[in-house]
Amino acid sequence: MKMNVTQKIIKDHLVSGEMKPGEEVGLKIDQTLTQDATGTMVMLELEAMEVEQAQTEASAQYVDHNMIQADSRNPDDHLFLESAAKKFGLYYSAPGNGVSHPVHMQRLAVPGKTLLGSDSHTCANGCMGMLAMGAGGIDVAQAIAGEPFNVKMPKVWGIYLDGKLPDWVSAKDVILELLRRHDVKGGIGTVMEYYGPGLKSLSAMDRHVIANMGAELGATGTVFPSDEEVKRFLKSQGREEDWVELLADEGASYDLEETVDLSSLEPMIAKPSSPGNVVPVAEVAGEEIYQSYIGSSANPGYRDFAIAAEIVKGKAVSEGLSFDINPTSRQMLTDLVKDGHVASLLSAGGRLHQAGCNGCIGMGQAPATGRNSLRTTPRNFPGRSGTKEDSVFLCSPETAAASALTGKITDPRTLEMEYPDVKDPDHPNLDFKLLEEPLPLEEAKKIELQRGPNIAAIPEMEKLPDEIKVPVILKLGDNVSTDDILAGGSRVLPFRSNLPEISKFTFEMLDDTYYERTKEMDFEKGHAVIGGSNYGQGSSREHAALAPRYLGLRLVVVKDFARIHWQNLINFGVLPLTFKNETDYEELEIGDVLHVKDIKSSLQKGEDVFCEVEGKDKRIDLQHALSKRQVEILLEGGLINWIKEGKKKTQ
Amino acid sequence: MKMNVTQKIIKDHLVSGEMKPGEEVGLKIDQTLTQDATGTMVMLELEAMEVEQAQTEASAQYVDHNMIQADSRNPDDHLFLESAAKKFGLYYSAPGNGVSHPVHMQRLAVPGKTLLGSDSHTCANGCMGMLAMGAGGIDVAQAIAGEPFNVKMPKVWGIYLDGKLPDWVSAKDVILELLRRHDVKGGIGTVMEYYGPGLKSLSAMDRHVIANMGAELGATGTVFPSDEEVKRFLKSQGREEDWVELLADEGASYDLEETVDLSSLEPMIAKPSSPGNVVPVAEVAGEEIYQSYIGSSANPGYRDFAIAAEIVKGKAVSEGLSFDINPTSRQMLTDLVKDGHVASLLSAGGRLHQAGCNGCIGMGQAPATGRNSLRTTPRNFPGRSGTKEDSVFLCSPETAAASALTGKITDPRTLEMEYPDVKDPDHPNLDFKLLEEPLPLEEAKKIELQRGPNIAAIPEMEKLPDEIKVPVILKLGDNVSTDDILAGGSRVLPFRSNLPEISKFTFEMLDDTYYERTKEMDFEKGHAVIGGSNYGQGSSREHAALAPRYLGLRLVVVKDFARIHWQNLINFGVLPLTFKNETDYEELEIGDVLHVKDIKSSLQKGEDVFCEVEGKDKRIDLQHALSKRQVEILLEGGLINWIKEGKKKTQ
Repeated sequence: MKMNVTQKIIKDHLVSGEMKPGEEVGLKIDQTLTQDATGTMVMLELEAMEVEQAQTEASAQYVDHNMIQADSRNPDDHLFLESAAKKFGLYYSAPGNGVSHPVHMQRLAVPGKTLLGSDSHTCANGCMGMLAMGAGGIDVAQAIAGEPFNVKMPKVWGIYLDGKLPDWVSAKDVILELLRRHDVKGGIGTVMEYYGPGLKSLSAMDRHVIANMGAELGATGTVFPSDEEVKRFLKSQGREEDWVELLADEGASYDLEETVDLSSLEPMIAKPSSPGNVVPVAEVAGEEIYQSYIGSSANPGYRDFAIAAEIVKGKAVSEGLSFDINPTSRQMLTDLVKDGHVASLLSAGGRLHQAGCNGCIGMGQAPATGRNSLRTTPRNFPGRSGTKEDSVFLCSPETAAASALTGKITDPRTLEMEYPDVKDPDHPNLDFKLLEEPLPLEEAKKIELQRGPNIAAIPEMEKLPDEIKVPVILKLGDNVSTDDILAGGSRVLPFRSNLPEISKFTFEMLDDTYYERTKEMDFEKGHAVIGGSNYGQGSSREHAALAPRYLGLRLVVVKDFARIHWQNLINFGVLPLTFKNETDYEELEIGDVLHVKDIKSSLQKGEDVFCEVEGKDKRIDLQHALSKRQVEILLEGGLINWIKEGKKKTQ
Repeated sequence: MKMNVTQKIIKDHLVSGEMKPGEEVGLKIDQTLTQDATGTMVMLELEAMEVEQAQTEASAQYVDHNMIQADSRNPDDHLFLESAAKKFGLYYSAPGNGVSHPVHMQRLAVPGKTLLGSDSHTCANGCMGMLAMGAGGIDVAQAIAGEPFNVKMPKVWGIYLDGKLPDWVSAKDVILELLRRHDVKGGIGTVMEYYGPGLKSLSAMDRHVIANMGAELGATGTVFPSDEEVKRFLKSQGREEDWVELLADEGASYDLEETVDLSSLEPMIAKPSSPGNVVPVAEVAGEEIYQSYIGSSANPGYRDFAIAAEIVKGKAVSEGLSFDINPTSRQMLTDLVKDGHVASLLSAGGRLHQAGCNGCIGMGQAPATGRNSLRTTPRNFPGRSGTKEDSVFLCSPETAAASALTGKITDPRTLEMEYPDVKDPDHPNLDFKLLEEPLPLEEAKKIELQRGPNIAAIPEMEKLPDEIKVPVILKLGDNVSTDDILAGGSRVLPFRSNLPEISKFTFEMLDDTYYERTKEMDFEKGHAVIGGSNYGQGSSREHAALAPRYLGLRLVVVKDFARIHWQNLINFGVLPLTFKNETDYEELEIGDVLHVKDIKSSLQKGEDVFCEVEGKDKRIDLQHALSKRQVEILLEGGLINWIKEGKKKTQ
């Protein structure tokens, strides 16, 4: 059978399941990536799973998100992560080294491998001929422990690139064009695989730009072939020996087909407040802006900064405009410094920030109220910039730099200058160690986790009993989101590594007595929550399952679940059931005590679960959609216990 | 009469009073400096005073403190400050340009002039042969309005510098040695004036280092002569025409005398948690550190960064150490970039931050809990770093860089290398505009203040009535600080430009019902507060007077006042009286209604003020220590009204 690149990588890593789109497949994971915002919990999970050493070929812990250090919580986390990286045999990238995705690409990415990361833009490393996927923290912890990653076999969406980009149009405009065509759900259930003659003119870092924002289309991953350009890139990084060629077989087919003629593209821009809200820049040109922002994993390359520098060189940005420069790796920043580009940016009025994610995830550089901000970042969801009433546009570095000069949204083609000729360097600066290497096992064993006062271990969780009798303490409606269950933001997130503390915020958006009521019940007596349709939609944050579980949640009964939260509930040992007859939703109320018997056998046999409502002489039929593996996990009390038990059995 | 430099400048600016140490003198102010943390209130005060244009020779508004931009409040303030600078005829320095003190030195400082700034390190520009002093915000507003600044005539403390600094010892060690000798109160009531042959080897920027931390000795100011080195510096900045020679007369005398033999000094360090806690570095060498921090107005020079860069060049800082580089001006950063020093710092593992005050005032880069942080900053008060339980040491860039390499406090003389030969550049990069110029009056008149949602105008305040009858609603003990009255910190300070909001925090440390009770009384009915001894000690923040005044505070009766808060109460129209018989303190209680008559004539005649306690048949004698000018201010309802009335009279 003739295969495309995605199929080749999947076949090469298939542990279970069949390669039919929609079927669950288990994939061996070669590499993992964690960042600090999700990584602290992953490290606590590794500790709870009693993992000794990473079983992957390469796992790296990056610090790039929480770098403001307004108080001791972030630096305490950094020390914890460094010690955990040493203990578990991971690479460690210290704050200031840069954003995980480009640093991983420079130092660790290997064509043909799988990469699982607890960051939604992990797909960026698909530019290197890898199958790179974002996932929840505990999924990554599991992969580090050597377990396969289970995912629905995606459709492969072949995107044929033809032609060559015109001057003033760059990689960002390619992915913005795809977002214009298909919007933010257009890639769900697919891997976006690029091929065709257009690839020739796109550098590995250009492909990173395109691969990165596959996340914005909802794709499972983005895959580029590993060709001569990937070889050139690896050679420039002193890693030519990591290169292998990986191309689609001649005549290979795709489940879905798309064509982009690069030569026909023009500068594009996503208007507030969705990455899918894309129009040509020309359509909104002339609108005044407060800020022009260069950086993030969506435009991380040397080229992206150098072209902005060349555009503003010898000029001054518009008076009063905030021109924010956010380097994406120490290595590229050093090159940009040496080649004079940083001096050009500074002299023109740039504000040079530390290398990291920074304002892309709302950590600094928030725009003024109601003012327009132009950014090369991947997302412009409302408020993500840190400013509640923000107005963020997404565009290429060319458009951002041109607009910085004029103070207005500007189509860069209207600048009176030649298109600057800049390329990623063939001889980047490599004369320093970017990552701390994993320790050998014997040394790692001696490492103590450096636990600051805000870092608490994950408590042990008991197995799912065969019979539970728990009161309903919340009854909720449709479309409850994980933000409703446990909010994000700077008020709550600093407690991300402290379950007892973060759990105090659980459900407070919907019922601020929830925490107090569970506390009065001593947590371990357990309780149930009733919900409507699409329960747990939104962010994949696993705290939304872990925190209520910590407070005693044992049973969630709803009309239907959002997929990721459903998985998270299973991972943390909460029984997720749905009404067989949705009308039964009306029958239940707060205070009802639900009595469920013979859980084990019902689940294992795939049967319905019967639930008696105590004192009401009422019996409700509930059902589940658990796979055999998921039933096992649930009965053990969650993934952490399941991994620990599995290890015992093999010892 | 033979005069020293300080006396010459004071004589040249004397508007009122006699030049006898301890007597109040009024001084003409030539230049002012405001930063963003204090400047928003100063701009609101200018608006309330109905000032049209700055009456000084040069006034500049810098943005260097609140640059984290986690939400819209800081950027909204920046836009407000920019519009206010335009409206009132000030220079404006945008965020990213750098720290006020070095930027002012580079662009605006002129020998022989007076500079008043709403920042305690304003004294730094004494390095340029100026009398530069820190003051409260409204004092600076008044100076911008053209009013003289009233201050007690200082003693002049002559500090004779002999010899030349040895290798590995630099300007920071000079001021640390003076702090070792005299501690943090050693300079109170003095201007520290440096002279002698040792000056020859100290660059203008070295002198900035020494002048800056005069604030840590409590000095009113620091003065250096304007000599050939100042001429060289101004020439390098393209401002040779601003130079005038200003030297002490041969044989001039000083009120106090001190000698420092530079050649005998060694590397010094201030241990936690006071700048006066100084010992030789050798005494604490070997202690492990988490952080090494270069930057701030206490070591702002090109040289200070370049020498650190040369020390770490081609090496790597200790694993896990946070090596934080905080440039102090856009101009110097650009030079450091062009000369390769930034590349050296980055390659060694440095985290390069935006040019500004940053961690020096707790805006980022907080150290991990309980870990040692070595900083070239001026202050190490507990918690100032942002970390509650911090452990901050103050030292030179040489000591900080040497320690970064070893991961331990290290006497730089023990490094096995030659002392790097670095100097401030004679031809710094000047090819860009650093400051926005003041607008001509006609254009300025058209400017609207850009008021974000968190910026509220200062409400009008009524005159002090001739008779007041107000209830006592708080009775406090001794040593109430301005922190007790209105806390600082990141919870309260974001409301610095919003009086209605910030006033909600008034006295909450002592009685959290205060705000609610004043609100029930409708504010304007007025109330009194009773206190003990040393009332209003601590920080000079004027919000501690303005906020309770806004809530209706009309009368404060205490045993005795701390000086600056007393002045602030007057400035905002609150009558500050003391008990004639301190035993009367015991007689008063919450709920007593104090009735004071004939206020105007009592104050103007300098007589005691009699106060009846309603319904208690009791009469208490109160007194005041107000000057004639202060009585005028108070009767008008504060400085804002007084300035407005004065302007009306002269129209």
